[in-house]
Amino acid sequence: MATKPSTPKGTRDFLPLQSLKRQFIFDTARGVFQQFGYVPIETPAMENLDTLLGKYGEEGDKLIYKILNNGDFLSKASEAKLAAKDSNSVSFEISDRALRYDLTVPFARFVVQNQNELTFPFKRFQIQPVWRADRPQKGRYREFYQCDVDVIGSDSLLNESELLTIVDEVFTKLGLGDIVIRLNNRKILSGIATAAGMKEHFQSMTIAIDKLDKIGPEKVKEEMIAQGLPEAGVKKVLNLIKLKGKVDDTLRMLAGAVVGVEEAYKGIEEVKNVIKALPERVRNKVELDLTLARGLNYYTGAIIEVGHKDFNSSICGGGRYDNLTGIFGLDGMSGVGVSFGADRIYDLMEDKNLFPTSLKASSDVLFVNFGPAEALACIAMASEIRSVGFSAEVYPDEAKLKKQMKYADSKGIRFVMMVGTEELANKQVTVKDMITGEQHTVFQKDISSFVIDKHQD
Amino acid sequence: MATKPSTPKGTRDFLPLQSLKRQFIFDTARGVFQQFGYVPIETPAMENLDTLLGKYGEEGDKLIYKILNNGDFLSKASEAKLAAKDSNSVSFEISDRALRYDLTVPFARFVVQNQNELTFPFKRFQIQPVWRADRPQKGRYREFYQCDVDVIGSDSLLNESELLTIVDEVFTKLGLGDIVIRLNNRKILSGIATAAGMKEHFQSMTIAIDKLDKIGPEKVKEEMIAQGLPEAGVKKVLNLIKLKGKVDDTLRMLAGAVVGVEEAYKGIEEVKNVIKALPERVRNKVELDLTLARGLNYYTGAIIEVGHKDFNSSICGGGRYDNLTGIFGLDGMSGVGVSFGADRIYDLMEDKNLFPTSLKASSDVLFVNFGPAEALACIAMASEIRSVGFSAEVYPDEAKLKKQMKYADSKGIRFVMMVGTEELANKQVTVKDMITGEQHTVFQKDISSFVIDKHQD
Repeated sequence: MATKPSTPKGTRDFLPLQSLKRQFIFDTARGVFQQFGYVPIETPAMENLDTLLGKYGEEGDKLIYKILNNGDFLSKASEAKLAAKDSNSVSFEISDRALRYDLTVPFARFVVQNQNELTFPFKRFQIQPVWRADRPQKGRYREFYQCDVDVIGSDSLLNESELLTIVDEVFTKLGLGDIVIRLNNRKILSGIATAAGMKEHFQSMTIAIDKLDKIGPEKVKEEMIAQGLPEAGVKKVLNLIKLKGKVDDTLRMLAGAVVGVEEAYKGIEEVKNVIKALPERVRNKVELDLTLARGLNYYTGAIIEVGHKDFNSSICGGGRYDNLTGIFGLDGMSGVGVSFGADRIYDLMEDKNLFPTSLKASSDVLFVNFGPAEALACIAMASEIRSVGFSAEVYPDEAKLKKQMKYADSKGIRFVMMVGTEELANKQVTVKDMITGEQHTVFQKDISSFVIDKHQD
Repeated sequence: MATKPSTPKGTRDFLPLQSLKRQFIFDTARGVFQQFGYVPIETPAMENLDTLLGKYGEEGDKLIYKILNNGDFLSKASEAKLAAKDSNSVSFEISDRALRYDLTVPFARFVVQNQNELTFPFKRFQIQPVWRADRPQKGRYREFYQCDVDVIGSDSLLNESELLTIVDEVFTKLGLGDIVIRLNNRKILSGIATAAGMKEHFQSMTIAIDKLDKIGPEKVKEEMIAQGLPEAGVKKVLNLIKLKGKVDDTLRMLAGAVVGVEEAYKGIEEVKNVIKALPERVRNKVELDLTLARGLNYYTGAIIEVGHKDFNSSICGGGRYDNLTGIFGLDGMSGVGVSFGADRIYDLMEDKNLFPTSLKASSDVLFVNFGPAEALACIAMASEIRSVGFSAEVYPDEAKLKKQMKYADSKGIRFVMMVGTEELANKQVTVKDMITGEQHTVFQKDISSFVIDKHQD
């Protein structure tokens, strides 16, 4: 192979420090989830193709990575379709499996398949990669991690409140406590459509509203009218959904505008109850945002989107779905969940320098290698240092001191320990503190207490 | 979808407790690796097809999962090949990417691609799934995790010693300290071939020897002779490789039998040096096993295989490779590594009941839900309990007490806490300890100290 090897477009290697930082985000989230009684599950990267197809709309289906059947995969393919080069039809004859596109559909499949092993309400989290054949661009990858947390099998609104509390806790632990939680409810949106005489246009309406952020209210209005929605209704909707302010006041104004529409009342009641069960510190971060529609049609109640004041895009989002497992034959399982955007959170933390400095891709201690006998003494000391909880390594090669020092320096190792002929004879170590530049002579038997003491300085 | 959904053949879901136990194994290994100065990396699940092809032999290539190109993938395929249904040739025209088959080749690609970002010797570990289109059978899956640890860019034998020490430490931490480390050296095997006058048959010889465990020495002998290897040489080799006993004695006997064969001396010297730098507790677990050949041709020095006295199969293995990155254009990078068999370790730990009982797919505390006002008081207490490091949840629905108790019981939750009308008025909680069966009345303000106290009992 002559050309320099590379990863496929839209995919990435993670270098050690990146890996450690990502692990830090996931460990932090995992810790919070578990404190609230959520438990981890894992599903395979591959799903049967028919588990995934038709769940993400036509556009989504196109972005699913199909896996070629092994062996003589063409034997069963139709000659006519092959001759016509009908890629789409042929793909279903030569591929039975695909890479998961998100964690939601596999989760629904998991719940139905394993229902007899689970206790409901089932509170799970799942942190795994997903794959999408999307056009790669800044911040958008073909392989990326999702971090989902859901409760399924309970329609209590306490679940919504709990998830928002979890969201706040995770971000606070990551140093991103300044979040804004935008909350809406699908029933309110539906009620607004009814009140505006556009009940039958609900889906077009939410799809258009979803674009408000990107194209502004004028264009959204034009789009809705172009689609044949009644102008008076469109105006009423756009006026209503821009209601803002304190949640209670907004809900009161809204209630006045949707008189007699039961569904809207129900949505308003739900929002009130979700907010009521929040701890005050979380309640203060919640805004009612009636423009929040989220294209996904499976949402039936709460719609959640979390932003941060220093970041443009959403860093977490989700909502309530009443019948996700229905697609796999298990009805009556209401659920609610949110998904954390790991890549965006990573970027935001990197920008704001929020990763703990203790995350480092190196050891605490390096022993310089001056030769076989010296190295053996160092190996024993390294082992002692590890036994008190620090990381230590012995440079494997008897290389020039300069090279070994450079290794320590470029890895950011704090303590460089040297045992040469003289130290070996005197049972001592010369220690260089790479931060302070100080040099110490320490007896070999005292080496681990030395590291403990210095660490506490 | 009428049929019950399932995962593809050879793949698995992991239920919460399984997930937690797997995480425990990985966290334990990760902790040890990091104490020795090894750092994590991650590579994408997909690699370019030409990165993987030709690296695992013809049989291996067949087991690689190819990913179908997206869009109109047939447009560029040859009509003639399609008409001939030549699956193998067509596969290269409609697939540019594949799922990784192991972590070794992606690691080599990673090192070459990112060489300017790395400090050598580079000590990395990597814990990620791999995919093989193998026939599924007990203990063999199409998606499974590998856990690899390698040093690259150093030919010092201290690396071999360090890796064996790491292996011992990981297994000891997992409660599997009773391991047997079988050690061999490719140069010894090669020297034995030379001494037996079979230098040119070395590869056939190692492939045959590799089957000793499975088919026994008679069949191996027959196979070698059938392949045209000289009978006298075959006998000599089979006699030599069955040398067993104390490492020093065995090496002395071996040296006597390979007089004048430089390569064998070198291998013997290497084994001695690897063993010399081991802590005594690890040295005591090492056996020289000259029958250890490991089919993989990229090994050039040490060959390592780790077994456990209570388990038939190998649970860890590896060796030294002198030119792995050469396939990607970077020469002179000697490396050595081992790979832990996560699934086998899991099974062994499960058999021996070694997972800590603290691993449980549930909370420490469940608050029963008696209604909205009571639930709010419980939410506040649950938050307090979490803040002192325990996990707690409030049952989301106002369900029958019996149902809620059953939930706690089936999840193995220890403390069930009840705040009904009376407790709400008295600012108390009734606590049922599901282990002892005892019931306590505690003031709400004392709830977290109660949990701390009970936990220490």
